[in-house]
Amino acid sequence: MSEQLQTQEVRDIIKDIFDRQMPYHQLIGLNISCYENNKIELKIAMKPELVGNIMHGILHGGVTASMLDVAGGMIVFSDVLENMEDLSKEAVMKRLQNLGTIDLRIDYLRPGRGEEFTATATVIRTGNKVAVARMELHNEKGDHIAFGTGTYMVG
Amino acid sequence: MSEQLQTQEVRDIIKDIFDRQMPYHQLIGLNISCYENNKIELKIAMKPELVGNIMHGILHGGVTASMLDVAGGMIVFSDVLENMEDLSKEAVMKRLQNLGTIDLRIDYLRPGRGEEFTATATVIRTGNKVAVARMELHNEKGDHIAFGTGTYMVG
Amino acid sequence: MSEQLQTQEVRDIIKDIFDRQMPYHQLIGLNISCYENNKIELKIAMKPELVGNIMHGILHGGVTASMLDVAGGMIVFSDVLENMEDLSKEAVMKRLQNLGTIDLRIDYLRPGRGEEFTATATVIRTGNKVAVARMELHNEKGDHIAFGTGTYMVG
Amino acid sequence: MSEQLQTQEVRDIIKDIFDRQMPYHQLIGLNISCYENNKIELKIAMKPELVGNIMHGILHGGVTASMLDVAGGMIVFSDVLENMEDLSKEAVMKRLQNLGTIDLRIDYLRPGRGEEFTATATVIRTGNKVAVARMELHNEKGDHIAFGTGTYMVG
Repeated sequence: MSEQLQTQEVRDIIKDIFDRQMPYHQLIGLNISCYENNKIELKIAMKPELVGNIMHGILHGGVTASMLDVAGGMIVFSDVLENMEDLSKEAVMKRLQNLGTIDLRIDYLRPGRGEEFTATATVIRTGNKVAVARMELHNEKGDHIAFGTGTYMVG
Repeated sequence: MSEQLQTQEVRDIIKDIFDRQMPYHQLIGLNISCYENNKIELKIAMKPELVGNIMHGILHGGVTASMLDVAGGMIVFSDVLENMEDLSKEAVMKRLQNLGTIDLRIDYLRPGRGEEFTATATVIRTGNKVAVARMELHNEKGDHIAFGTGTYMVG
Repeated sequence: MSEQLQTQEVRDIIKDIFDRQMPYHQLIGLNISCYENNKIELKIAMKPELVGNIMHGILHGGVTASMLDVAGGMIVFSDVLENMEDLSKEAVMKRLQNLGTIDLRIDYLRPGRGEEFTATATVIRTGNKVAVARMELHNEKGDHIAFGTGTYMVG
Repeated sequence: MSEQLQTQEVRDIIKDIFDRQMPYHQLIGLNISCYENNKIELKIAMKPELVGNIMHGILHGGVTASMLDVAGGMIVFSDVLENMEDLSKEAVMKRLQNLGTIDLRIDYLRPGRGEEFTATATVIRTGNKVAVARMELHNEKGDHIAFGTGTYMVG
């Protein structure tokens, strides 16, 4: 039987994958600052390449969508892990491969002005096959920039 | 009175702005291949930095969201232009600054496999203040990768 | 082994259930006018009780949402039936019990003015567990009143 | 100049309109139990006519959508009132006529089982033209049945 990991050890491995091994996350500078039970926090530092509106110098809506999508996916997967009995690396990786976004709604509340943006998420529905998360994006001043709802395939 | 442009001339200027002067579009390699009355086409060539899933080598959902958001915004703005009387550069730029995404829904239909992705869009509601567009993403084989609906502030 | 039905026979049974045995459908006067392979059509005749805005006399947005939700669910279930091997009544009813709306987006395009409203739907994603449909509502003049996207649990 | 009302007086008038003068609300038994600054509460008692699934006896998803749509519209209008200078009946009614749902997303979290359902809502974006609300539906046991996000035209 494969070595069984603790749930937090698994989250640390996944955090590392999303933080360092996802080429697109490297491209935009996405950093996973926290991944614990019921808690996910992603950060991105504003940089010229992320600007979507040269007149206003604000964050491109696609970056916002990217951050919220990832935050939602990771928080629902954290919930999946809490309910898995076999926490071998093989079992976890197999389950992770099934994780996928079914649909995503983003509400853009305010222009994306700021120096650092933080995405957080909470699970609002858990199921064997489908889970739903609610996500938020704030800047370093605490302004609520965007709000999201994502439905994810989890099984 | 300012020089009045033809609607297509205006679209060509905007196409150039979105194609060459949006830092994030440069970063991900987004190309505006067509911008005409009732027609928008954005293309992106797959490249390693856009991968969101190293196990499957597929396009990151955030790139999909970015493309559909831009396609929707551009198609509704094309409609705005058709109804503007003053087509001076100042008037157009002022109106363009008011363009913003209110909310966006993305339906991820298939994994983003392919070498080139094309986003298209059509307007489904036009108003003085708010417009709604429907967007689609296909790969080079014609597989329907994603579908979107966006509500935009236009006035 | 249970008697095997033809797919269209099954659709006729389901059409009858949704048309005559759903109390809420009776309450609002929802009629299933067509249920065939790849085709669903629901109709509702305007009546005073469905008005949501006494000043304008227009259809309540909740009726619109109800019609689009049902249209989407029925069209994805039609697709499920096409892929089922065991078409006994027991197998079909069991599968029907699993049918459920996960999430729904409605875009209200125009005020719901008219004498008769028709909802139609098409499948845009089929899967073993989850399916996505696109729905539309028109009035008797062909005005496009609303547009919807629904994600449904199908397995 | 017209008689100026207090904001809560206006809300009481609107509460009465939505509670007693909307034919569809009468049809489904929708009751506005509270409408104050930053607070809206709608209730509906389960009754046979609202059943959408005879096998399970649960609330029709269209009723859920109806309740969440109304809750969201009323809460954003409460915010509009807080910012209006002219609170004459004419000014308020004119503004109320402009209130309309642009788009609505409903996430169905659990089957609608229960004897009484309560919808609540909070504003997450306020603007001169467009506002966004988040809505929730719970049953009498506090089970979270559905979650919604609505974008409304307010000006």
